[in-house]
Amino acid sequence: MNTLGKNFVFTSFGESHGKAIGGVLDGVPAGVHIDMDMIREALDKRAGRVKVKGERLEVKGTVSPRALREGDEVEWLSGVMDGMTLGTPIAFIIRNKDARPEDYEWLKYSYRIGHADRTYQEKYGIRDHRGGGRASARETASRVVAGSVAQQLLKEKGVEIQAKLVQVGEEKNPERFNEYIATIQRDGDSIGGIVECVITGLPIGVGEPIFDKLQSHLAFAMMSINGCKGFEYGSGFEGVELKGSEMYLSENHTLISGGMAGGISDGTPVVFRCVFKPTASNRKTFEAIRREGDEAKGKSIGRHDACIAVRAVAVVEAMAALVLQDLLSK
Amino acid sequence: MNTLGKNFVFTSFGESHGKAIGGVLDGVPAGVHIDMDMIREALDKRAGRVKVKGERLEVKGTVSPRALREGDEVEWLSGVMDGMTLGTPIAFIIRNKDARPEDYEWLKYSYRIGHADRTYQEKYGIRDHRGGGRASARETASRVVAGSVAQQLLKEKGVEIQAKLVQVGEEKNPERFNEYIATIQRDGDSIGGIVECVITGLPIGVGEPIFDKLQSHLAFAMMSINGCKGFEYGSGFEGVELKGSEMYLSENHTLISGGMAGGISDGTPVVFRCVFKPTASNRKTFEAIRREGDEAKGKSIGRHDACIAVRAVAVVEAMAALVLQDLLSK
Amino acid sequence: MNTLGKNFVFTSFGESHGKAIGGVLDGVPAGVHIDMDMIREALDKRAGRVKVKGERLEVKGTVSPRALREGDEVEWLSGVMDGMTLGTPIAFIIRNKDARPEDYEWLKYSYRIGHADRTYQEKYGIRDHRGGGRASARETASRVVAGSVAQQLLKEKGVEIQAKLVQVGEEKNPERFNEYIATIQRDGDSIGGIVECVITGLPIGVGEPIFDKLQSHLAFAMMSINGCKGFEYGSGFEGVELKGSEMYLSENHTLISGGMAGGISDGTPVVFRCVFKPTASNRKTFEAIRREGDEAKGKSIGRHDACIAVRAVAVVEAMAALVLQDLLSK
Amino acid sequence: MNTLGKNFVFTSFGESHGKAIGGVLDGVPAGVHIDMDMIREALDKRAGRVKVKGERLEVKGTVSPRALREGDEVEWLSGVMDGMTLGTPIAFIIRNKDARPEDYEWLKYSYRIGHADRTYQEKYGIRDHRGGGRASARETASRVVAGSVAQQLLKEKGVEIQAKLVQVGEEKNPERFNEYIATIQRDGDSIGGIVECVITGLPIGVGEPIFDKLQSHLAFAMMSINGCKGFEYGSGFEGVELKGSEMYLSENHTLISGGMAGGISDGTPVVFRCVFKPTASNRKTFEAIRREGDEAKGKSIGRHDACIAVRAVAVVEAMAALVLQDLLSK
Repeated sequence: MNTLGKNFVFTSFGESHGKAIGGVLDGVPAGVHIDMDMIREALDKRAGRVKVKGERLEVKGTVSPRALREGDEVEWLSGVMDGMTLGTPIAFIIRNKDARPEDYEWLKYSYRIGHADRTYQEKYGIRDHRGGGRASARETASRVVAGSVAQQLLKEKGVEIQAKLVQVGEEKNPERFNEYIATIQRDGDSIGGIVECVITGLPIGVGEPIFDKLQSHLAFAMMSINGCKGFEYGSGFEGVELKGSEMYLSENHTLISGGMAGGISDGTPVVFRCVFKPTASNRKTFEAIRREGDEAKGKSIGRHDACIAVRAVAVVEAMAALVLQDLLSK
Repeated sequence: MNTLGKNFVFTSFGESHGKAIGGVLDGVPAGVHIDMDMIREALDKRAGRVKVKGERLEVKGTVSPRALREGDEVEWLSGVMDGMTLGTPIAFIIRNKDARPEDYEWLKYSYRIGHADRTYQEKYGIRDHRGGGRASARETASRVVAGSVAQQLLKEKGVEIQAKLVQVGEEKNPERFNEYIATIQRDGDSIGGIVECVITGLPIGVGEPIFDKLQSHLAFAMMSINGCKGFEYGSGFEGVELKGSEMYLSENHTLISGGMAGGISDGTPVVFRCVFKPTASNRKTFEAIRREGDEAKGKSIGRHDACIAVRAVAVVEAMAALVLQDLLSK
Repeated sequence: MNTLGKNFVFTSFGESHGKAIGGVLDGVPAGVHIDMDMIREALDKRAGRVKVKGERLEVKGTVSPRALREGDEVEWLSGVMDGMTLGTPIAFIIRNKDARPEDYEWLKYSYRIGHADRTYQEKYGIRDHRGGGRASARETASRVVAGSVAQQLLKEKGVEIQAKLVQVGEEKNPERFNEYIATIQRDGDSIGGIVECVITGLPIGVGEPIFDKLQSHLAFAMMSINGCKGFEYGSGFEGVELKGSEMYLSENHTLISGGMAGGISDGTPVVFRCVFKPTASNRKTFEAIRREGDEAKGKSIGRHDACIAVRAVAVVEAMAALVLQDLLSK
Repeated sequence: MNTLGKNFVFTSFGESHGKAIGGVLDGVPAGVHIDMDMIREALDKRAGRVKVKGERLEVKGTVSPRALREGDEVEWLSGVMDGMTLGTPIAFIIRNKDARPEDYEWLKYSYRIGHADRTYQEKYGIRDHRGGGRASARETASRVVAGSVAQQLLKEKGVEIQAKLVQVGEEKNPERFNEYIATIQRDGDSIGGIVECVITGLPIGVGEPIFDKLQSHLAFAMMSINGCKGFEYGSGFEGVELKGSEMYLSENHTLISGGMAGGISDGTPVVFRCVFKPTASNRKTFEAIRREGDEAKGKSIGRHDACIAVRAVAVVEAMAALVLQDLLSK
């Protein structure tokens, strides 16, 4: 359903073009100060504005002006009094001020290829066609708010979560990502990317041996992010060519183990990666579809990301924080 | 903990060198005939005996004689009467007849590198050192029994699950897997592998839009299999180089989508892959460790798989079946 | 925590004197029309205005003007479009417009006897002293909104839930309840009451045999209502004097069975009762406490119910509806 | 389903006349010594043998020879090594050695009135007619084993649970219970009873404010015991006649509060009561039914309790222990 976690529980609600999106966080300990600036910063990152060497830069082709404003529009309804948590559920909302449902009117009668439009319609018999409804990536703003609260709780325990883009298309040099993405955007196209996340300060013993392995919970959470097509940790897929005799000679044992053994954190940094597909909502896709003869779908409206992996970085961090705070709340 | 699922619930118990391993399956509908031969066959596959073109072959370097006998040793305690399910919990056990705990006595005072020995000790303050206790892959026999029951329930609804090995080390040609693994084994080494699983007959609409996405549940289950280091579906990690404009031109759209859109099955075959690392318990690893100066751990006992991915095929199918039957039991 | 249900899931949030109270309902089927008048009516009942023979009467000593306004103040944030459910989570809020936190300032440094003030402080180390925070009965307004949605979904399936007051103090004649309560109120005192709930139209087979018995779920939900001290069904506590030989001679077998056998509905009306204690927040209590020497607590502020059982009727119906809709959503 | 608890999780399985009954306990901490004598004693109590002033007496009309032997027949399959818990799931079974399914052959084609036979058949389309299958009170032996493990874990934390019979029919003097029940039994009849349970040593703060109130969890667990028709705590149903002004004058405030405020333990002893109906499986019931013309059901076989409340005492303690250990495992 729309709830994640067992002891630190996040419930997400809201359609992207309804009245508001928001969430409820249950299981937050009482008496913790919440830093609203950190939440704003996390939302900024999700909007496409990233910090590089202390400077806040906007990655061309990915910045969402609407999302940038979200940081100032979070309304806290409960669970916090004078900036301190009460131990009661924290409810927050972000109103959909500049929703333009009329932009999406044409969608009422057509599906976007590669989108969840059709599966929703089949599943529910009804769907909020306005901007993808729940399927819209806007829902991840709620995740980022909740995840940022979780990250602050984790920080108090010495746990730090840091995700970054490590590959865009075939490009693996971060220095060139910005330029590469700008080119893709100018071309009206989109491209995939890989996000790597490193968690430090996690104590030994997080995760359970059989089904509730740490990597299982992380994979579950990451695969729930829009556009994520794969999850790996430590040696991952490239490790298929590894021989056992090579595994433990290596100096970078952590890179191979990924910080987990038998489903349980081993005290070294946890390292995992997620791959994101290119968004289907770009100009070229629509041209392509039109060329293939499906005129009804051949209309592209609104601004779409040239590389969704850029903005996914903030969501990866948020989801990792929600998972870890849940496992540590036991 | 040791329970998977919400509506079709599997609980696993038992240490590999205790009295017995087993499981409880709750949420099984009443009045279904269970085919014990199919369960035996699934356990055979997990033991390293595979069917190739109708013939049952044993993959050199992976066959476990102990596991081969498990098929004849499943004892059904409840939930089944005259071969029919009662709708009550199905409990079954496999006794650990030839447990040789003395083989593992040395482990009482040392950890095996790359094993969960140390994280368990740290987490629980006690551990059953005999054969890895719960961490042992023997626990997956219970999963295969339960998963085979699930597969039979799914078959009645037209859902078929078929996994197979698609890569061993750098080798991608199935014709050469057997020979390749035999070489690795002769060398006292071990090697990684990739298992691909295809699910057909799944109706549109399985999975939920936000957190309980179909791919999230599949990833959660697969990452819980011993040695699994990554999960991907559809275009997966290789898809990072894909451009949006290429995605929908391709004839093999299913290969890209993997049968899911927005977290929900779209009616086409679901396709995912898991990567398995080489086991650390091979001769060469121990030699390597000894070379690096850690004498205490430098002792290898018992038979170990040259490529655990071979036997993981049965477990991948079992876990996929448990997930799907759970989601379809709603 | 603050969530009830497994398949039809209600999450409640909000402090009574914070910004807003509200809730999220997940698992609501798509395409159902929601009648806002029925929700207003249920909230009215909770406010102390009841329907007797088609006429809306206010029960003296129990009507809450603040609660009466809640019916007009429910704001729907998501999950509903043009009066129809979308199948996505329904979020709603009721703003705490006339919150007067200053009335409760004295509570910051003292506990009210018989209230949860002290247990909260001990448990959380912090508490929102303003009007009891989460412990306040105001939280039940969210339950009534959610329960009314559930009741409408149940009505579509032919299930009707009807609760009523059957005893006030020693008085068992409904004709005299109003007068009796008015007397109690004039006296500055409060009194207990018993609410009986009858559920008709429930199909055979609701509930599970072992732990998830229908009566278990109903008891769980009823015991969570503020002031409820007991739950019984069918022959209940008076049945202690029953002999087996008398049980099945009786014409009113339903009264004895309460509509459930072995934890499962048997197709006859389900009948249960809940007892509510008198509220402790009345004038006489405070006088009494003061007489006993505890000056610090001896101050009574605000309006309090002479018989909370009157307004509990709406909450009993709401909780029963949430439980049944959850069990029927499986 | 067949599972209770969230952090300390008990799963029950087995039909009363199948191969075995048993259970799995998950979430047991590692390194705790389990006293098998205490488990035997708890099973004895459930069999009708009770301790009065240090002496073990058998209550006439309630002793079950079959159940008495269960204490010696518990087989531990996993989770315990050399009497110490491993932190892994504890699985245990009790084989149904003297099952006489032929006794119940006639039931294949008829239902017992007041039993769950019919609701089961309707719900599942199949049922194990042998001895009531899962509905049989024999299933509670598994609860007592698991509950006794929980009680031992609680004892280490200073929490003690003590239940006792406080009323049989209209008789409230314990000195006369034995004689009273013997009379009822000689008469071929059965009678109801009330069990009171007192929990001491529970720290302040157990239970959650809104839905997961301590009394909610206790009520849920008690209502799941066969034959339980009501649950009350503190002043309970008799408290309906209480005025607010009387509540806090009383010296026995604990009797009124029952040790909980706002759903949370307040540090004083927790006191609750459960009422049990007379069993329907007595000679007189069958005569009565036959007199009413339903010949098919008029056959009574086997031994049945004159007052099931006697043996329910052990089950009440077990269920209370399971609930508390679960809440304290958080």
